[in-house]
Amino acid sequence: MVDSSSIDVLQPVLILLPMHDFIEIPLVKKFKFLKAFEAEEGRDQFLEKHAEIIKVILCTGFTPVNAETISKLPRLECVIAVSTGVNLIDLDACRERSVRVTNAGTAYSEDTADYGVGLLMDVCRRISAADSFVRQGLWSANRDCPYFGSSLGGKRVGMIGLGNIGASIAKKVASFGCEMSYTTRSQKETVPYKYYPTVLELASNNDVLVVCCALTKETTHIVNRDVMLALGKEGVVINIGRGPLIDEKELVKCLLNGEIKGAGMDVFENEPEVPKEFYGMDNVVLSPHSAPLTPESLENVVELSIANLNNVFAKRPLLSVVV
Amino acid sequence: MVDSSSIDVLQPVLILLPMHDFIEIPLVKKFKFLKAFEAEEGRDQFLEKHAEIIKVILCTGFTPVNAETISKLPRLECVIAVSTGVNLIDLDACRERSVRVTNAGTAYSEDTADYGVGLLMDVCRRISAADSFVRQGLWSANRDCPYFGSSLGGKRVGMIGLGNIGASIAKKVASFGCEMSYTTRSQKETVPYKYYPTVLELASNNDVLVVCCALTKETTHIVNRDVMLALGKEGVVINIGRGPLIDEKELVKCLLNGEIKGAGMDVFENEPEVPKEFYGMDNVVLSPHSAPLTPESLENVVELSIANLNNVFAKRPLLSVVV
Repeated sequence: MVDSSSIDVLQPVLILLPMHDFIEIPLVKKFKFLKAFEAEEGRDQFLEKHAEIIKVILCTGFTPVNAETISKLPRLECVIAVSTGVNLIDLDACRERSVRVTNAGTAYSEDTADYGVGLLMDVCRRISAADSFVRQGLWSANRDCPYFGSSLGGKRVGMIGLGNIGASIAKKVASFGCEMSYTTRSQKETVPYKYYPTVLELASNNDVLVVCCALTKETTHIVNRDVMLALGKEGVVINIGRGPLIDEKELVKCLLNGEIKGAGMDVFENEPEVPKEFYGMDNVVLSPHSAPLTPESLENVVELSIANLNNVFAKRPLLSVVV
Repeated sequence: MVDSSSIDVLQPVLILLPMHDFIEIPLVKKFKFLKAFEAEEGRDQFLEKHAEIIKVILCTGFTPVNAETISKLPRLECVIAVSTGVNLIDLDACRERSVRVTNAGTAYSEDTADYGVGLLMDVCRRISAADSFVRQGLWSANRDCPYFGSSLGGKRVGMIGLGNIGASIAKKVASFGCEMSYTTRSQKETVPYKYYPTVLELASNNDVLVVCCALTKETTHIVNRDVMLALGKEGVVINIGRGPLIDEKELVKCLLNGEIKGAGMDVFENEPEVPKEFYGMDNVVLSPHSAPLTPESLENVVELSIANLNNVFAKRPLLSVVV
């Protein structure tokens, strides 16, 4: 493998928006970061100035890579995302230009899956609510502590999406005695769980929905008001996919009206904005898109990104290709 | 089985301290509750007045049943605890008088185990801390969200105690890719996990300690300062047993000094009092002894208690006998 740090001149990599330190610090030693967002001359001029040398964009899951940007970079060969979701990258525009797109592959899968299970447990057994209850000093004043949650064992849990993350969640949740089922575009022959062809049927037959499919035009608001009503008053929704998979305004209404029981969300429609109505609810658990973030996962993704960047410049096959 | 509700006069049951409604409401229809704590004449006179008819005490895990009380009840045959822990019942005094003691057996085991796993995930992945971070509006102000926790997979988790609850926790935690080990009074031949003969050795070789043994004179402060120092700066302690299993003052010091990394506690030394130092720590999860409390568990324990009370009066063998 070519180690680009041994080459006198580091290869250039376009960065459109700031990256987390834990990605930037190890990568900036090996590649020359061209930071469009810091350019004094403005982004467009910056892209124009460097257009002839930019072969690759490195981006987080929060960075839009749209058709206009792509059109300004005639030498662009590849967009390397350090996220699992690539919903902010215009994949059609990439396909048209034969620009390849890679994502984090399975680098975050286990940690994201674990966090999904954690959110499910937390909402069902009300752990964060209990923590807040004790911290407010309410236990001392109210020895006969309130009812906290309900058993996991026997709960029917429906997965929306059953990729790497969904399959890992399903396996782990099943070990708590839950009954698993799922919906995906087409039934998976090797999966032991019951399949429902529609999200509505899945919701009607489950106590918990776990949302972990990719965000596309088709899956936007896949959990809408009808789905939540089908899930019902005792129902819980967990979202570790992307915010727009759930119709957030309707989710707020359903929770306020007691039309569903609770929710655990690591993702939101307009991050980092969170609907203020959630702040006062003790039946929701809120999390700042941190499901994938552990030192271990980030080390995985840094390694994968370095390998892919090296592969681009060495014209070798890429890893975890999306497009 | 004799249904005591079909008998004209309900059988008397001594109650020393208030019970949760969810225990009292279904039981009070079937038995006559003699509530010593409500007696106008005072508890001693009340016991004296009813001494000849009291065959059974029904109690929660928060109710002391001491030698003096037992000595005042010459007809006492049985103490029925609706809790798993019987550490507030003077078992020696019971043995001496051939008073039998029963507990909740496995009624709460799965729910308590699930909650233990939940606390472990919550502390390691910092779910409650994340929830608090978002609720305080800190995410909007700090898009680049802070580091949240570390991977479960690969963590070494040591169980102190491996009864019903401990075995269930170990099995579930193992499904997250953790490496399990344990300590108990004697090695269990059929258990696949590594055995350490002492808590100190267990602590030295693990990242997480889960405390779920019975509280006795021997196990009081089984997790002391030395054990926490052996666990080390990256170590996490989870307690779903009883508060006095951990030296709480030393736990506070170790957390304040960064000598261990975090803790999840459903139980405390002086419940419902919680050391105020914990309130300001975002690396602890606090819970009001609610691990076993779900509608499902409580239904289990109500059924078991009714069966045992019926068995006492019908002179049939008792279930889940401790002494």
